[in-house]
Amino acid sequence: MPLAGPIGSLPLPSFLEKRLFSTTPPVRSLTINNINPHVKEAKYAVRGELAIKSEQYKAQIARGEGKDLPFDSVIAANIGNPQQLDQKPLTFFRQVTSLLENPALLECQDLLEQNAGYQSDVFERARRLLKDVKSVGAYSQSQGAPGIRQSVADFIERRDGYPADKELIYLCAGASAGVNSLMNVICASPNTGVLVPIPQYPLYTATLALLNAKVVPYYLDEGTAWGTDLGGMREALAKAKKEGIDVRAVVVINPGNPTGASLKAEDIRGVLEMAAEERLVVLADEVYQTNVFEGEFFSFKKGLRDLQKSEGNAGGKYDNVELASLHSISKGMVGECGHRGGYYEMVGFDPEVVAQIYKFVSIMLCPPVIGQALVDCMVAPPKTGEPSYPLYEKEYNHIFTSLRQRANALYTAFQKMEGVTCNSPAGSMYLFPSIHLPAKAIAKAKEEGRGADEYYCLRLLEATGICIVPGSGFGQREGTLHFRTTFLAPGTEWVGRITEFHQKFMEEFR
Amino acid sequence: MPLAGPIGSLPLPSFLEKRLFSTTPPVRSLTINNINPHVKEAKYAVRGELAIKSEQYKAQIARGEGKDLPFDSVIAANIGNPQQLDQKPLTFFRQVTSLLENPALLECQDLLEQNAGYQSDVFERARRLLKDVKSVGAYSQSQGAPGIRQSVADFIERRDGYPADKELIYLCAGASAGVNSLMNVICASPNTGVLVPIPQYPLYTATLALLNAKVVPYYLDEGTAWGTDLGGMREALAKAKKEGIDVRAVVVINPGNPTGASLKAEDIRGVLEMAAEERLVVLADEVYQTNVFEGEFFSFKKGLRDLQKSEGNAGGKYDNVELASLHSISKGMVGECGHRGGYYEMVGFDPEVVAQIYKFVSIMLCPPVIGQALVDCMVAPPKTGEPSYPLYEKEYNHIFTSLRQRANALYTAFQKMEGVTCNSPAGSMYLFPSIHLPAKAIAKAKEEGRGADEYYCLRLLEATGICIVPGSGFGQREGTLHFRTTFLAPGTEWVGRITEFHQKFMEEFR
Repeated sequence: MPLAGPIGSLPLPSFLEKRLFSTTPPVRSLTINNINPHVKEAKYAVRGELAIKSEQYKAQIARGEGKDLPFDSVIAANIGNPQQLDQKPLTFFRQVTSLLENPALLECQDLLEQNAGYQSDVFERARRLLKDVKSVGAYSQSQGAPGIRQSVADFIERRDGYPADKELIYLCAGASAGVNSLMNVICASPNTGVLVPIPQYPLYTATLALLNAKVVPYYLDEGTAWGTDLGGMREALAKAKKEGIDVRAVVVINPGNPTGASLKAEDIRGVLEMAAEERLVVLADEVYQTNVFEGEFFSFKKGLRDLQKSEGNAGGKYDNVELASLHSISKGMVGECGHRGGYYEMVGFDPEVVAQIYKFVSIMLCPPVIGQALVDCMVAPPKTGEPSYPLYEKEYNHIFTSLRQRANALYTAFQKMEGVTCNSPAGSMYLFPSIHLPAKAIAKAKEEGRGADEYYCLRLLEATGICIVPGSGFGQREGTLHFRTTFLAPGTEWVGRITEFHQKFMEEFR
Repeated sequence: MPLAGPIGSLPLPSFLEKRLFSTTPPVRSLTINNINPHVKEAKYAVRGELAIKSEQYKAQIARGEGKDLPFDSVIAANIGNPQQLDQKPLTFFRQVTSLLENPALLECQDLLEQNAGYQSDVFERARRLLKDVKSVGAYSQSQGAPGIRQSVADFIERRDGYPADKELIYLCAGASAGVNSLMNVICASPNTGVLVPIPQYPLYTATLALLNAKVVPYYLDEGTAWGTDLGGMREALAKAKKEGIDVRAVVVINPGNPTGASLKAEDIRGVLEMAAEERLVVLADEVYQTNVFEGEFFSFKKGLRDLQKSEGNAGGKYDNVELASLHSISKGMVGECGHRGGYYEMVGFDPEVVAQIYKFVSIMLCPPVIGQALVDCMVAPPKTGEPSYPLYEKEYNHIFTSLRQRANALYTAFQKMEGVTCNSPAGSMYLFPSIHLPAKAIAKAKEEGRGADEYYCLRLLEATGICIVPGSGFGQREGTLHFRTTFLAPGTEWVGRITEFHQKFMEEFR
């Protein structure tokens, strides 16, 4: 917990020391009992207690005070943060942003080409982007720079075979910021409900908690590799409606987080059919669209346009479908989390509603412009025949292959672990195995006031320095236990730490 | 308005064309009448109708279709966005960020020193920052990278003469994001109130509207160069309390936006005294702390520590004061708006409340890391004797002097304009003159369903291409009219456009 502690090793003036370490609690305006209750309710386990504890271990080791710990490094497998581990940024992307940061380097083209591996297309891209934004230190339009939004529209058209309108594409500070904007507009009262898959990325439940709206859970089917159960989704909706909840939107994470599963085209059509019949906004979180190992990615936008096309002229049931699909520079082979970039495309929204979303995003001025530029690189990477293409392709494929190898290594290890079952790696950056723990372990966890999955993850962290997230942080069926781990950390040594811990843990509570 | 229009000049498939231009309105989930009412209520004039219209003019001119317009360029004087006009970024800052974006350039030190003006301290800074964040593409800690927070703590200590704790310094995506986080925690119910100066930067009223909390206005005194009237502030508070409002915080913008006025040390102590007696959180928006032409900047943090020191041991009335002070890379001589960086320091907050703020910021993962690096450059710029210092000092002073010159040129023009009165430029990036318009102009505005100041600004935009913001966007005393203009645009030609328009406008309605 980021509590107010002593101020480093500074000598404190006595009046301050007395205040900071006073034992009488001061009277304050804000206390844990009177702040916004919805902030208190929001949960975000990906960066919760375990993550904070792992940061403390890391700092302890960095200070050289870790010799009593039973491990010598901390593995942050709790969060999809590739560049904090060993993933290198894509060279083309960062060469471009280096020029955007210091346009004086545009004058050193020959020098950088001869000595630093820059190619001519890097300079062309930087010049085009600078023409669009003028300076990466200037606010852009609230919804993002127009030229970059056009690049996104072109990308969507190439991907789906249907045109896209740059005026309905909003750049954002990562997909999380996009979800936040959309949810702020959707959630009108405590009675507003949003269908959310379980398990889910906790951004959704946290945002709905903050907005005092209702999560309407629908369960993914672990038995069919975390498939989307359309019948179950409709039942969840019917039940919520019966309870008087004003359900307005359905969240679909495709490929799934934490599950990795890709929706089949027929399931996408099924979700859109339900959305059309029940008048629901579809929020398609498609940030893992390139992290696909099994099956293939099929976008909600394409699904919708296909359905509209098959209906022929206007007046059909799919006319009314509102779809917002989100993408991000943080995932895929790009992995530029720290730059906070992404976009969402809105299809079928009422223009008056779009204008309100515009106003909402204006209040925070604009998404980070360097992050916008990286969106441009992501949606329009070097093409075959262009000078930067060979290296880009090599790096991209290396990252893809290495992610798949790591996923498989981890999967193989999980298959050998007692009481652990795991679907084969299908996509995203995560595995989400189910764990069956001995009754004594569950009882011990209860004794300590923790869920059994949380207890297991805490013990793993304390024993191995590996930070993973309990299934309860994402939601899981009553009576089941899971954890989520990324497969981003390099090497296999850490996988061995997990299997060794697991065996000991199972022995301890047998 | 960013409405869904035809998709550029793309040939549309007929099923799409029929849908996009269908005259029967589709049935949708979201309409202007059922979305979050608090989003609808929020107002943000800095990027409102006039700003959108000015962007349209700009695009029209860029397309070569502007020959029928009575102006040949658009001047965005509505927003403090220095690098969109002609302010150059500080060289040291951008040299550092270019290395952070492409660390391969660290291997080209000799080359860049000999050919691109890089100095050795640029490389040292980049290396230190990379050690702290590993990669600018990795998520940092939710509250920002620890080394950068330590730089901020050191800066605050040098500035104020009192230590600061890096654990209570949170980096954020511009001060706006910081205000948003703090307000989310403070606003617990529709009955929560926050004291806000009038005129104010509309972020405050917009955020309170979104959170469904109450603005408790206190008026700045135009007659004393927009001074802070402590008596008036206490009256506003007393009135709100009498109405049953749970007033929890007071916003102070120092130096003021839109007014430019700096609070005197005695007024700061007065605000803190009220906060102590009435248990209010002080939100000190100090983003213009280096944009000071008259008087000098005195921080709330120093004010508070001075008072605590003068009280001696703990147990005094200032023990309980909660202060959050905000700073930003967007303003000052830095002007890196597009990078979205800033910080806030929390003093005196309950640790449990800080933990909730930590959780809240975690949901959005972390502030942009390049923006964090620029915070480091801002709080620890090159020092006397360091190789980058001479250029840094020259650039910094040039920007400062040139802002003051522009402010004075504009002020001189306003003094000559009929019916316009303006306080002398004191700081920030704005002038906020009062305008006295003829009764006929006021009647005409009313006829068009607009406030008189809004009508004036719209007519100015249509006639000259200059975009300014009506005083109603910031709040003004009943019966008075103002506008806010930045003094960032280069040259004096545009000032001439304003005076010419003004004269004609006054003639037209005389």
